[in-house]
Amino acid sequence: MYENYWQQMGERTTVVIPGWQSMSYFSDVKNPCWFLEPEFAKQVVRLHNVVGNAVTDGRQIVVGTGSSQLFLAALYALAPKDGSEPMSVVSAAPYYSSYPSMTDCLKSGLYKWAGDARSFNKEVPYIELVTSPNNPDGFVRHSMVNRTGGILVHDLAYYWPQYTPISSPADHDLTLFTVSKATGHAGTRIGWALVKDLEVAKKMIKFIELNTIGVSRDSQLRAAKILEVMTNTSENLGSFDSHESFFKISYHLMAERWQLLRVAVNRSRAFSLPDFTPGFCHFLNQDSQPQPAFAWLKCEDDHVEDCESFLRGYKILTRGGRHFGVGPKYVRISMLDRDNNFDLFVKRLSTIQS
Amino acid sequence: MYENYWQQMGERTTVVIPGWQSMSYFSDVKNPCWFLEPEFAKQVVRLHNVVGNAVTDGRQIVVGTGSSQLFLAALYALAPKDGSEPMSVVSAAPYYSSYPSMTDCLKSGLYKWAGDARSFNKEVPYIELVTSPNNPDGFVRHSMVNRTGGILVHDLAYYWPQYTPISSPADHDLTLFTVSKATGHAGTRIGWALVKDLEVAKKMIKFIELNTIGVSRDSQLRAAKILEVMTNTSENLGSFDSHESFFKISYHLMAERWQLLRVAVNRSRAFSLPDFTPGFCHFLNQDSQPQPAFAWLKCEDDHVEDCESFLRGYKILTRGGRHFGVGPKYVRISMLDRDNNFDLFVKRLSTIQS
Repeated sequence: MYENYWQQMGERTTVVIPGWQSMSYFSDVKNPCWFLEPEFAKQVVRLHNVVGNAVTDGRQIVVGTGSSQLFLAALYALAPKDGSEPMSVVSAAPYYSSYPSMTDCLKSGLYKWAGDARSFNKEVPYIELVTSPNNPDGFVRHSMVNRTGGILVHDLAYYWPQYTPISSPADHDLTLFTVSKATGHAGTRIGWALVKDLEVAKKMIKFIELNTIGVSRDSQLRAAKILEVMTNTSENLGSFDSHESFFKISYHLMAERWQLLRVAVNRSRAFSLPDFTPGFCHFLNQDSQPQPAFAWLKCEDDHVEDCESFLRGYKILTRGGRHFGVGPKYVRISMLDRDNNFDLFVKRLSTIQS
Repeated sequence: MYENYWQQMGERTTVVIPGWQSMSYFSDVKNPCWFLEPEFAKQVVRLHNVVGNAVTDGRQIVVGTGSSQLFLAALYALAPKDGSEPMSVVSAAPYYSSYPSMTDCLKSGLYKWAGDARSFNKEVPYIELVTSPNNPDGFVRHSMVNRTGGILVHDLAYYWPQYTPISSPADHDLTLFTVSKATGHAGTRIGWALVKDLEVAKKMIKFIELNTIGVSRDSQLRAAKILEVMTNTSENLGSFDSHESFFKISYHLMAERWQLLRVAVNRSRAFSLPDFTPGFCHFLNQDSQPQPAFAWLKCEDDHVEDCESFLRGYKILTRGGRHFGVGPKYVRISMLDRDNNFDLFVKRLSTIQS
């Protein structure tokens, strides 16, 4: 979806890396995160300051091979090394479908997946993943476990103006972001964490050392260039016009897509979508509508038990609710596909009658 | 050490990536390893064919964020998911110092570090890591566990003509390579595995999905370019002269350094180095001398217990033998540092008298 925009930006985001550059493992030996490219760190801070979606002061930036690696690094850093049993990891359903498998794939003795945060009632310490806006359903979220003693990890991959109103700068202990959802560059595999406690950050850095001995410097340099252009077009600086603003253009694209989708869903009457409340976006300086990167579609037809296989019959590929810890009446559909695919999906959906 | 060479190659290894390229997660949807860049895979095969250090026919190539990630992926793929206890992972001492911490850092229920392969005698299945030439001591290695039932993982990071004679193409079940040791581009974080059994490869791919959702496409494109130039200069094709051959130049650089080091060690008489037997290198088409990427130095002075702290007193930074599963009389020193640092190290070493 974002490809067109970056094509229009032309050479401004082209990265050129000569063969003899960035050869060493080390990006910045003076930084606790020795594999963090200073230019990438600088552009992360600039972008958050311009968008106003996260406090960066007094935070250690930890770069990761996507936010997946940072999620695992956070579990490693937060779970006690000598606990009598693995620490519980929870998130309110519907939750990001990869959390359980990522948490449990190595049968770690440090942490284990403990399911839906809403029903978690064990009297033990726990890590709660707060994804806001939430993947898959797009709602703004806060901690859901009804007691103290938990450690929160905020996954704010979608807390950008094109998806949700920016109400205030996030100011949490440990926050994850990723280039893939902000700019569309998923193949670059770059994410970052903002970490308040330096000791926690150091443990995350240790994990990334043990896991991949740092993070691709080439990708960080590329990501830095892309974030720089995003920030410049948002500040309306230099040679950029306001109609080149990445977030404004993306916001309107998402708005268009959501409108098309809602028309199709209303026409078909076999489905429903979440209803969102608009909020004031301090970045766009206007009321703005939540318009998530995923549509969380519910099948309203009583005769349909399994919405995923029902839609597959209409050549619409989705991910069923069971993966997200809820029932099969729900499916998740990407709203970020290429124009052609999105148009085809909406067309097919609108023909289905209950 | 390799920086000069790549500078001389000029723009031939410069990579240019426009902002709209390689945005998707997917590199090649038809490949089981869907995050493998076809151009990178092609250059890996070409390079192995020209160097003659590994059979690629009938192998699945799996790309990783360095060979560290591939090592972890191999453990995940080879350990049974439902074993009554974690599978033992062994390697003959002295072994690569990161193996134990990488294996045990998450207290996995799938596998655990079980120490020196030579003393391993439990009647259970095991994974043996065979590093050849070995890090830290540079010797060519084969399996050391004296019984059957083991699964071998061959770490051939240093099986390149500048370090060791290429005696024949490696033809193992699961072999790891990494760009960092072949070309010097450590910051690019790209490694690859050659895997005979497709089911094992698929599990490794699954691990990398869960760990980092693929591997930086930018880095793969850069690595492809670098490997391409290495192969071209080795084939003596097109616009390259034979004096531009990466491996010939690197071989002579390493030979020079080892000669300087041996002179210094002989002069000081406080230390000894391993003695290697030359062998015929089918790539260089001549007898060639093993000249490892690390010097495995033994302190011969009876009054010195801890060689690492002894050398620190002379401002020589090393890694002590205990990290590698042996005694503190040994230290490992990099032979790949920049010219200035290497010269300083040799100078300082030669002044030490027993």
